[in-house]
This record gives sequence, C-alpha cells and structure tokens, in this order.
Amino acid sequence: MSGNSIGTLFTVTTFGESHGPALGCIVDGCPPGLALSEADIQPELDRRRPGQSRHTTQRRESDRVTILSGVFDGVTTGTPIGMLVHNEDQRSRDYDKIKKLFRPGHADYTYEQKYGRRDYRGGGRASARETVMRVAAGAVARKCLEEKAGIRIQGWLRQLGPIELDCPDLEAVYQNPFFCAEPARLPELEAYMDALRKEGDSIGARINLMAAGMPVGLGEPVFDRLEADIGKAMLSIGAVKAVEFGAGFAAVAQKGTEHRDEITPKGFRSNSAGGTLGGISSGQDLLVSIGLKPTSSIRLPAATIDTEGQAAEIATTGRHDPCVGLRATPIAEAMLAIVVMDHWLRQRAQNADSRSATPVVPASIPGE
Amino acid sequence: MSGNSIGTLFTVTTFGESHGPALGCIVDGCPPGLALSEADIQPELDRRRPGQSRHTTQRRESDRVTILSGVFDGVTTGTPIGMLVHNEDQRSRDYDKIKKLFRPGHADYTYEQKYGRRDYRGGGRASARETVMRVAAGAVARKCLEEKAGIRIQGWLRQLGPIELDCPDLEAVYQNPFFCAEPARLPELEAYMDALRKEGDSIGARINLMAAGMPVGLGEPVFDRLEADIGKAMLSIGAVKAVEFGAGFAAVAQKGTEHRDEITPKGFRSNSAGGTLGGISSGQDLLVSIGLKPTSSIRLPAATIDTEGQAAEIATTGRHDPCVGLRATPIAEAMLAIVVMDHWLRQRAQNADSRSATPVVPASIPGE
Amino acid sequence: MSGNSIGTLFTVTTFGESHGPALGCIVDGCPPGLALSEADIQPELDRRRPGQSRHTTQRRESDRVTILSGVFDGVTTGTPIGMLVHNEDQRSRDYDKIKKLFRPGHADYTYEQKYGRRDYRGGGRASARETVMRVAAGAVARKCLEEKAGIRIQGWLRQLGPIELDCPDLEAVYQNPFFCAEPARLPELEAYMDALRKEGDSIGARINLMAAGMPVGLGEPVFDRLEADIGKAMLSIGAVKAVEFGAGFAAVAQKGTEHRDEITPKGFRSNSAGGTLGGISSGQDLLVSIGLKPTSSIRLPAATIDTEGQAAEIATTGRHDPCVGLRATPIAEAMLAIVVMDHWLRQRAQNADSRSATPVVPASIPGE
Amino acid sequence: MSGNSIGTLFTVTTFGESHGPALGCIVDGCPPGLALSEADIQPELDRRRPGQSRHTTQRRESDRVTILSGVFDGVTTGTPIGMLVHNEDQRSRDYDKIKKLFRPGHADYTYEQKYGRRDYRGGGRASARETVMRVAAGAVARKCLEEKAGIRIQGWLRQLGPIELDCPDLEAVYQNPFFCAEPARLPELEAYMDALRKEGDSIGARINLMAAGMPVGLGEPVFDRLEADIGKAMLSIGAVKAVEFGAGFAAVAQKGTEHRDEITPKGFRSNSAGGTLGGISSGQDLLVSIGLKPTSSIRLPAATIDTEGQAAEIATTGRHDPCVGLRATPIAEAMLAIVVMDHWLRQRAQNADSRSATPVVPASIPGE
Repeated sequence: MSGNSIGTLFTVTTFGESHGPALGCIVDGCPPGLALSEADIQPELDRRRPGQSRHTTQRRESDRVTILSGVFDGVTTGTPIGMLVHNEDQRSRDYDKIKKLFRPGHADYTYEQKYGRRDYRGGGRASARETVMRVAAGAVARKCLEEKAGIRIQGWLRQLGPIELDCPDLEAVYQNPFFCAEPARLPELEAYMDALRKEGDSIGARINLMAAGMPVGLGEPVFDRLEADIGKAMLSIGAVKAVEFGAGFAAVAQKGTEHRDEITPKGFRSNSAGGTLGGISSGQDLLVSIGLKPTSSIRLPAATIDTEGQAAEIATTGRHDPCVGLRATPIAEAMLAIVVMDHWLRQRAQNADSRSATPVVPASIPGE
Repeated sequence: MSGNSIGTLFTVTTFGESHGPALGCIVDGCPPGLALSEADIQPELDRRRPGQSRHTTQRRESDRVTILSGVFDGVTTGTPIGMLVHNEDQRSRDYDKIKKLFRPGHADYTYEQKYGRRDYRGGGRASARETVMRVAAGAVARKCLEEKAGIRIQGWLRQLGPIELDCPDLEAVYQNPFFCAEPARLPELEAYMDALRKEGDSIGARINLMAAGMPVGLGEPVFDRLEADIGKAMLSIGAVKAVEFGAGFAAVAQKGTEHRDEITPKGFRSNSAGGTLGGISSGQDLLVSIGLKPTSSIRLPAATIDTEGQAAEIATTGRHDPCVGLRATPIAEAMLAIVVMDHWLRQRAQNADSRSATPVVPASIPGE
Repeated sequence: MSGNSIGTLFTVTTFGESHGPALGCIVDGCPPGLALSEADIQPELDRRRPGQSRHTTQRRESDRVTILSGVFDGVTTGTPIGMLVHNEDQRSRDYDKIKKLFRPGHADYTYEQKYGRRDYRGGGRASARETVMRVAAGAVARKCLEEKAGIRIQGWLRQLGPIELDCPDLEAVYQNPFFCAEPARLPELEAYMDALRKEGDSIGARINLMAAGMPVGLGEPVFDRLEADIGKAMLSIGAVKAVEFGAGFAAVAQKGTEHRDEITPKGFRSNSAGGTLGGISSGQDLLVSIGLKPTSSIRLPAATIDTEGQAAEIATTGRHDPCVGLRATPIAEAMLAIVVMDHWLRQRAQNADSRSATPVVPASIPGE
Repeated sequence: MSGNSIGTLFTVTTFGESHGPALGCIVDGCPPGLALSEADIQPELDRRRPGQSRHTTQRRESDRVTILSGVFDGVTTGTPIGMLVHNEDQRSRDYDKIKKLFRPGHADYTYEQKYGRRDYRGGGRASARETVMRVAAGAVARKCLEEKAGIRIQGWLRQLGPIELDCPDLEAVYQNPFFCAEPARLPELEAYMDALRKEGDSIGARINLMAAGMPVGLGEPVFDRLEADIGKAMLSIGAVKAVEFGAGFAAVAQKGTEHRDEITPKGFRSNSAGGTLGGISSGQDLLVSIGLKPTSSIRLPAATIDTEGQAAEIATTGRHDPCVGLRATPIAEAMLAIVVMDHWLRQRAQNADSRSATPVVPASIPGE
C-alpha cells in the first residue's frame, strides 16, 4: 500500500486533505456486537477539535462525524465501518501566498519533489486535519478495548517547552484544553502560551501515554513487537520526532540491576520496561512517551526557496497552533488504541486455545 | 502475519532459535542484476559476531552464511534469496537451571503466557541470535542501496552508560569492537567494561545512525512515513527502548525559530528534522538515534518466580553480553538499510514518472 | 485485514451496505499526474447501473459519484482518492418479510452464523450494490492503464444460459444492455429474458474479458502470479463460481502439441495460455472467462429455515436481476483493471532498471 | 511482497530453484501446542515425489525434509517453522542446450523479459520443484486443521485427458500413483499414459478437491471470500488454467430453481454452491475443481526463438512428467489446507465471541 492503512486485522484506512470537501476513513475488522453510534465517536473528535481555546488554531470546524456503514440497529455487524467528516471552514485564499513557496519544516518541498505536484492549500494531505479520522477510528478501537478486553487508554501532557509536568490527577486531563494532569499548573501554562503567541514563535511538547488493564501476551515477535508497532503508529503522527517506552533513553545510563523489573508472586517490583518483555505485553501498564517538535508555521520570517528554486522569505499568517503538541493527546491515544486493538485480535487468532500452567502475575505489587 | 516479516516490497522473513539447528531468512523482492555472493554478506555477519573481544559473550559461532537461492552466475535473479546460518556452539545444558525460572527483563514469562509453552534454551526465538539473519538480509539491502541508489548507511556508538562519545572519525568504527568513532576514547571504554564485568552488572548504550546520499522523496504518508517505518524497525530490535530522529526529544524544548530547517538554493541551513519532512526524505542525511537497555542476564541475583508461580531467586551464569548495545551497531544498520531499500522500491513504483519543475536542494550548505 | 481491501500497491478498500446511507471507497497508491474527475468515473458507473432495461432490477439509483480527495486542479496528487455514492432508493420495508428467513443461495445464513447478526435489508454488505465502488475504483485504474501503459480492458457477454455468443463487434458492447458483442442476436436474448421473467425463474451467464496492449513482465511468481491475482479478483465478485484463462478447462483434454503456443520472431502462433507464461504476462492479450450462477432471489418458492431454525418457505418479491450476469461485465472489467494496475506498479518497483537483450515478441503473428 | 508469500495469519513464504542447493520455506503463525515432527510432513512430500512410477519424471530426489525451528520437545511453540529440502539429482548439463532457447509454454521467455536474466537450469524458480515446499507447509496446515478443527482435505484425479473418472473410493487415492479414486479404471490410465509416452506427447488433467468437516463462518467478504482466496491459491500452481466451485461453469446454463441449495432443518438439500454462501463457508463440504494444462516440455519439436530473437526449433529431452496433473493432487491439497487454515485463524480473530441464536444446519440431509 501507499501508507494510508494501518493494522493487520483491525485495519484503518484514511483519506482527505485540509481543504478538500471531506475527510473519511474505513475501519475494517471490528468485531461484531459492539454498541456503536456517532455519540461514541463525537466526544473524541471534540477533544482534538481546533478553536476550543485561544491557544489553538482559530479555524472553526464542527467536525461532525457520520457513520455510513458497518452498524445496524445500533450495533456493529462485522462489516467495514465507513465514517465521514466534512470540512467547513476552508479559507483557501489564505494559502495563495504560499502557492509558490515552500514552508520550512513542512512537507511542501518533499511532496512537490515526490509527486511532482502538491495540493498547497493548508498542507493538503500533510495537514494536521488528517488526524481527524485517526481519532474517529481510534474511538471505535477504544470502545471495543474497554468493553471486550477491559483495556483503558489515557494520555496527558508531560512537558510544554521548558515546563515539565507531573500526573497527579488523570481525571483533570478531560477538563482543560492542555490535557494537563496537574491542574494547579494551568496558569503557568496559560501564561507561557500567551507570551509565546505574542512573540510569534512556537514550541514543542511531550505527551505521555498509558494503557492500563493490559492482558499478558499481546505483541508478535520478531518484527511486529508491541513497541515496534506502537512506535510506528506514534511516529506516523505529523510532528512526532521521538518515542520511548518505560525508562526509554534513560535506560542507556542504567545498570542491569537497576533496570530489570524483578518478579514476585504478588506482582512486578517496577516497570522500567514500560509494560513489555520481548515485545510482548507483560500485563503491566504500557508506558509510552512521545516528543513533538514545535509548529513550523510561525509569524517570524524564515529563509526558503520558491517553486523555481530561487531564494525567498516566508512568514506564515494563516491560522495555526503555536504548539501542535497541545492537541496531540487524543490523537496519540487514538493511535495507541488502534495498535493495541489490532494486537488483541492477532493474539486471539493464533493463541485463543493456548493456556499456560503458570499463574498470571499482577501488574504491580499493591502499595508499591 | 505473525510478525516474522518486514517490508512491503523488499520483504525479509526470518526464522530460528538460539539453540535450534539453524537460523535462516528469505529476502523477497530484491531487484535482479545485483552481483551477490556470500563474500558480500559474511563481513557484516562478522561485525556482529560474538566472541570477538572479551567484552561480548564468549559463545563461539562462526556464523558462516550460505546463499541457497536467488543468485545465478553470481548475480541476483529477482527470485527470493534464501540464506542459512547453522548454530554450532549450543551449550543447552547451561539452560537447564532456567527451565523452571523466568529471568526478569527477559521474554521468558511473556512467551510462556502467550504461547502456553516456550523454548527455554538460550531464550529460543527471543535470543539475540535472532538478529543474525537481520544482518544477513541487511547486507543485501545495503549493497543494493549503495550500487543502485548511492545511499550509504553508517552507525556508531554514541554513548556507553555514562560515557558520551563524539563522531570525529567514521572510518574508525570498523576498527574497534565498540563501533566507536572516537578512537582516542577506547581505553576509557575498555576500562569501564572491565570494571562492569568484575562487578557482575550490565549497562545500556546509545547508537547513532546515518543514511547519507538520500534522494528526496522516500516515505509514504500517512501511516508509512519514513520515520514511522524506521522507528518500527529499530524498536523491533531486542533491547531497544527508545528512538528519535534529528533533534528528537530535544525538540520538545525548542522554539520554532530554532528547530525549523531553513531552505536556501545552496542547501538546508540545518537538519533538526533528521532528514525528513512530512514523513518523506528531504535529501538531507537521515539521522536516527536509539537507546538500548542494559542486558537483563547478569550474575547478580534477582527476585523472580518459577513456572508454578512461586517466589525464587535467579543469577544468570551463561555466556552473555554485559552490554547488548556493543554489538547492536551492525544490527541497527541492517534494519535501517532494509527499510530504506523498501521505500526506495515503493517510491519507484508509484512515482517513477513524476518530475517536479523545482530543482533539488543540496543536503546542506557547503562549509556550514 | 478483514477482506475489504485488494491490491498491494494500487490498493482499493470499500465499505457500504445496500440500505445504508452511502457506499464508499479509498483508492490508495494511484500515480500522480493523472487527469481525473467525476466525468471519468460516472460513465462506468452508469454502465452497471440498475434499472436501465426491463431485464434488470427496477431499483432506481442515480449512482452519482463524488471524489472527496486525491485530486487537485483536475489531476491526481498521489494521495488517496476517496469516493462516495449515496444510496437513494432503499425500500427497506420490502425486506421485513425476510428479516426472520434465510434466502437459499444468499449470504443471509452465513453472515448470521459468522457474525452472530446481520443487516437483513437487501442483503446488507452482501448485496450486488457492493460492486458500485469496485466499478468506481476500476475506472481510475482503467484510465491510468490506458494513459500510462496503453493497456485496454474489455469484457462482453459470452453466454446467457443456453445461448452461446460470439464476439464479432466489440464496439457493440457499449450499445446494448446485455454487453453483447454480437448485436444480431439481441432479439434472441430479449426473448429469452422475457420468457424467463414470466416464468419467475433466473439464469446464469458467462462473461469473457480481454486486456489488450499488455507489456511482457507483469505478475509475480510464485503465489502472486497474474492469473492467481486475477482469479482471486474475479472470484471475489458475488455470483462468480468459476474462472479460466486461455484454453481453461479445455486444456484438460488437450495434448501438449496442441496447447503450447509456439513462438516465432514475428509473434506467438496461438494463445492457449491466455496471455501468461509462468504467471507472468507474455505480451499477448490476457484472456479470462468467468461463470456466474443464476440469481438466487426468485419468485418461485423454495424451502428454507427461519432464524429459529424451523422449516419455512420463501419466495422473493423484491426488485432483483433475473440474471446477475447481465450487469457483471463492467464489474469484472473493473476488477481486471485493478489487478493489472497493481501488477504494473509492482513490476516497475522491482524491475524498472532491468533490460533483456532479447527483443520482445509481438502478441500474435499478423494475419493469423 | 514479490509474491513468494501467501496467507494473512498463517503465512507461508518459500524459496528455491530447481537446480539450486536447496528449497526452503517459513511457516509463520502456526498455533502453538501442535505435535509436529518430520514424520508428519515426509509422507506428504513422498506423495508428490517424482520417480515413483514410470509415468512421472525419472529425476531421483529423496526430498527429505528437515525442520529447523518452531518446534520444541516435539510440539510447535508458535514461532516460525523453518523447513529445508536439499536438491540432490540436479543434472544441470541437461539444460545447456536450452540455455539460449525459450521453451514454448514455459516461463523462460517471460522471466528473461521481466528480470533481464534467468536461471535456465530446469526452469529455475519456475520449475515444478518449487511446489515441494508448498506441500511441506500444507502438511503443517493439514495436521493443524484436522486436530484443532476437525477439517479434512482430500483430492483425487477427476479426468486424465479424455478419460473422466468417478470417485467411489477415496481411500484408493492413497494406493495408486494416479491419485485415482476409481481403482478399476487404473489399467485404462496406465495404457493411456504408455501410449502417450511412446507418442512423445503430453496431456492435461482435472483434479477435484474437497474439504469436509468445515465449520460455518470461514471467509472474509468482500475481496477475501473463501472462493477468492482458494481460487488464487489454486491458480498459483504452475499448470493450473481454470478453477471452479460446486456447479462451477455448469451454473451458467442452470436456472435459479435448479441451482439454489434449499435449506431444511435437517440439512441442505444440495450443494451447487460448493460449500460457500456469500464467500463464507456454509458448513457444507467445500468442492473445488481445477484444470491443468498438458506439460509443455515434450519430445516432439516446436518452433521457438533463441535469446537473440532468431527463429529456432526445440525438442525437450530432459526428465519430465508427460502429465503434470498426475502429481498435482498433493500440491492442490496443500494449497487448499493453507488457505482454509488461514481463514480459520482469521475467523477466530474477529468473531471468537460471536454467537448466533440460529442453530447450525447439517452439511447435508442424511440419506440424500
């Protein structure tokens, strides 16, 4: 394929450009018997929707999703689920000025060279709007995982530029536009973003993710390890430049005695591995962290070239997120849900009748 | 599939366990007309071979590769290339003592739970020996990339535990068992490893990788971005817990003005992106960095459980690398080569007749 | 996947049920630079559209296709092409009577058992309406094949029940609702269908297909031979129960001296093989023939069971084609185009720079 | 991929040429816990082995298979199963005379044009020896199907040139080199083959196949219908030019009242469909029939061209089967087993927890 599908058994294929008439996706392989309606998907789309605070792009999209197939009498039938979201607020004239310029840090130049042409309106397929259908598909995966497998996916903002954040209150994530789990720090984040916007610059972010309630056994050695497939899914999100699991890069300076997660009948003593052993889920929480680069479209001018290859200067004045990471949490959650769902089906396919004599170890020792 | 294949058009499928009779792979989709013999592959296998210094496992394997198909009159024919390496030094009795114990940090427990059984001899399929065939397949990709596309792959040791290293001399990488590009620091590395071995502990490492001579245009939006597929390939290697591209996690604290790589007719002014824009190669060097955890098999005892779920203690006395990262360089190079090769073919399939009117920008400004 | 995608590089994924709001598809991997609009696709949809003669179902659908992505300034961009057709004339109440009955010869019973439920309205996903998006996707493939490769796809009615037909005039196929290439026989076909409709019964049909202008070299040994992939595509069409290439089943009683297609510098002397040798196109015309079963939904009552497993009788009174084969020609052409397009891209990927010293043999000897 | 793999979850990848050192395969996705050794596979290889009667090629190969991975303590572990068969009797000098000639009906010409070169020794990858590993992989699928699902695969010779055969005694198939289920006709077959060999010509054949004990529910609409995937697998076998299911091409002239298989609580009244409804197994026996062309390599001379494109004459004097169909039965059985196994896993993945309230209908009415 040309890369617009993901998943072996729970397969998501998407289409759509920033300024085309609509975005859509097909979710193939969803188990039948899952109660599903637009009401299950819309809240997830609303979480990533632009224009909800002054810190994100002011493009106004209602992002109303329609389910076109795969559901009958309110329940999935096992056939592919087609979904559609219409674009509404396409101010394509904003983009006339970049028709002949390549924005640094954007896909403009590489699309032009790869395909010999490009849809320059709002980045075309390379726009962050492409992620709308990831979230819609992820909502299906998420509901299925929760109801059929008891697996819960949750992400939160771990770092905004220089500001590192803790995670004392996961519920708070749903109550602020930063997806911040440390609500006391919200004024600090607000102030930082206000200053940044005034400055005309942008900033990176780090998002942490967790899948709790994981069964042991998901993930396929060798090439389709759970980390490998999750890592791919994360790195397929526009601005993501790094991904790590558990201790991640910190493991480089760790000794074996420090890193290894000792096992006891009452549970694992630690989770440096981030929830996998040998590429297979251990039953511990999956712990993933991703790093997002700062938005490339900023008001401050930069050197670039035009479509004839001549030197030029560019300053972006369209509607853009000064921190793409601020809206990345529901997108990354969706990708995590899609991959875990796929591996849940894959595990069942090969090993539905396999049973070990060894009892399953709890995720962690209570009280530790 | 169950995860033992990678690649859409240049497809590598592997088999084999640490203590089985042999390891093998099938490389499907290699273009015809490439001069190829065992002599092209053996040097890469020798680079990752154990027992070449006192710092790696003392298992003695000659790792002689045999090409069984796909080559005629010294040239690839376009049919699948089967390759085989026999295991020789399988001291399986070493493993009797772990038959009923799960080594922390290893795949023992998860294989047992996933499949209801496991080949406990040397980790079975989860052994580092599994990477032999990755290197063999990677050698084919590498030769093809160099000869047909002018792309060169190179990795080096960036960090050994607390010791960070520079890269002043890429040629030196081939002349020391650490794959270290800063040869003046070799005594320091030797001393660190000697102390570690005495201590009975293990340590993590960081490897950097580069693909030079990249054409613009490789990588498939949306889900099969070049970073996504490379990231997956890296995270599919046993001990890898983190991967980043270009500025990587450092981009989290960067501003847009700092991160974005300005474009001039003479070249890109920087390479924070690590060689891609929008998931597509920009023609700049691909820059990848991976973090490997410390070896889990160490002499110092740890808490674990046995196959009945009872508490136990384990100390590994088999032959193991105290730093798996030390031999990871050729393995990671192989994975990078396989992914880039695959995308080189994919790009040609869809876009062989696409041409842009815009001239290609040099990778970097000479002298900067 | 769960089977709603086809193709490795030119990938078509479809969704939609007979009585849902819409049918849709995503065409991924289409080369950029192809002039494309709805006007290129609509004529193919119109060819398969129901209600165009009294011999096909009287369901009234305008089948207006909308392109939602992948095209900019009238030209494909290389990104996925999303297309949509709304259902209009869904008389779902017609189906209340079969809500609790399984129609013999239909997918009702197997969907129920496979998924534990089914969308009984008009067969749901198992309806012939599912083929709408095959035709839309096929129109893209067809245009690309004609313009980029000079390959032309053509099908015609070879047999209607007992009536065997010749193919003296391929142009005529476009001028009658039977896709008959022997226009003098049209009154005979009309009379047969009128009698059949009066009788309340249905009948099978045979369609022949040809791809002319084939280059030599398409098809991938071993499992993805050109015949294998075409055969799969044909057998994926609802009522198709048989497929053959060239001499087909007649080859069973042929001797080698009769069957083998001798080669001369001026061309092949015959085409028993149907255009392939060793699963690879020989440059001769691809010759495919498919057999379609009679429509299962007929007025004459049949024994069946109800959803409780009790004996029942059923007579279908909805709007149905008495010969599904009558509308199968554009569908089969579409599938042929999709497969050939996929293999044209696959061939280019691996072998774009391979050249043989042997001159290409003409498809056939002129005048023979 | 380049076509040397088949299957989504039960994936078989093969390599090897007629005159290379060995043939091999990797079976990925086999469920763990299956007792497996070479003794389970060798009998199937022996069934297809050449040189067992005077009617097949006199090439002498012992075809001893070795399992190299995936089995531990006599039981599959869930990891990929590598298997190898060495070539022994490669009289490559026999092929010097065809080095510069293209055999009509063979893949010589198309391989040369596709890849720009070819391994001319015995047809290289296009040799019937390629099927050895299909049979080895099929033996694993077959054992797994029998033990885990109660599905039994059986094929037999339905027609040898002009001689049509019945199937009164399936056990007899294992007791004669023709795979003939009507042992009384064996002298007739022997006489036909003796005359044919004297004549220097070759002949086609038809093989019928059955899968009994099928559960309802296997097969994935739309593109991966059970017939579609089986049809592809059959047409991927060298000489197969046609495939049909149930009534097959005879359905073209059938009326709906005749073709449709009525359903009663005691069973289906007929099996015109050949065991599927809507691409999904109905629980009835799968009925498949394939047509094989006559061997192209015969003693009687034919017109051809040489590698420079000049007219030439060729007469094949190597060791060849005068009827490739005679050894095709175990090969076709293997392919059927591989596809059914794959779909058995796919069905379990998506629908393991789906249950219909409708009771399952028996395959057929007892006594009818």
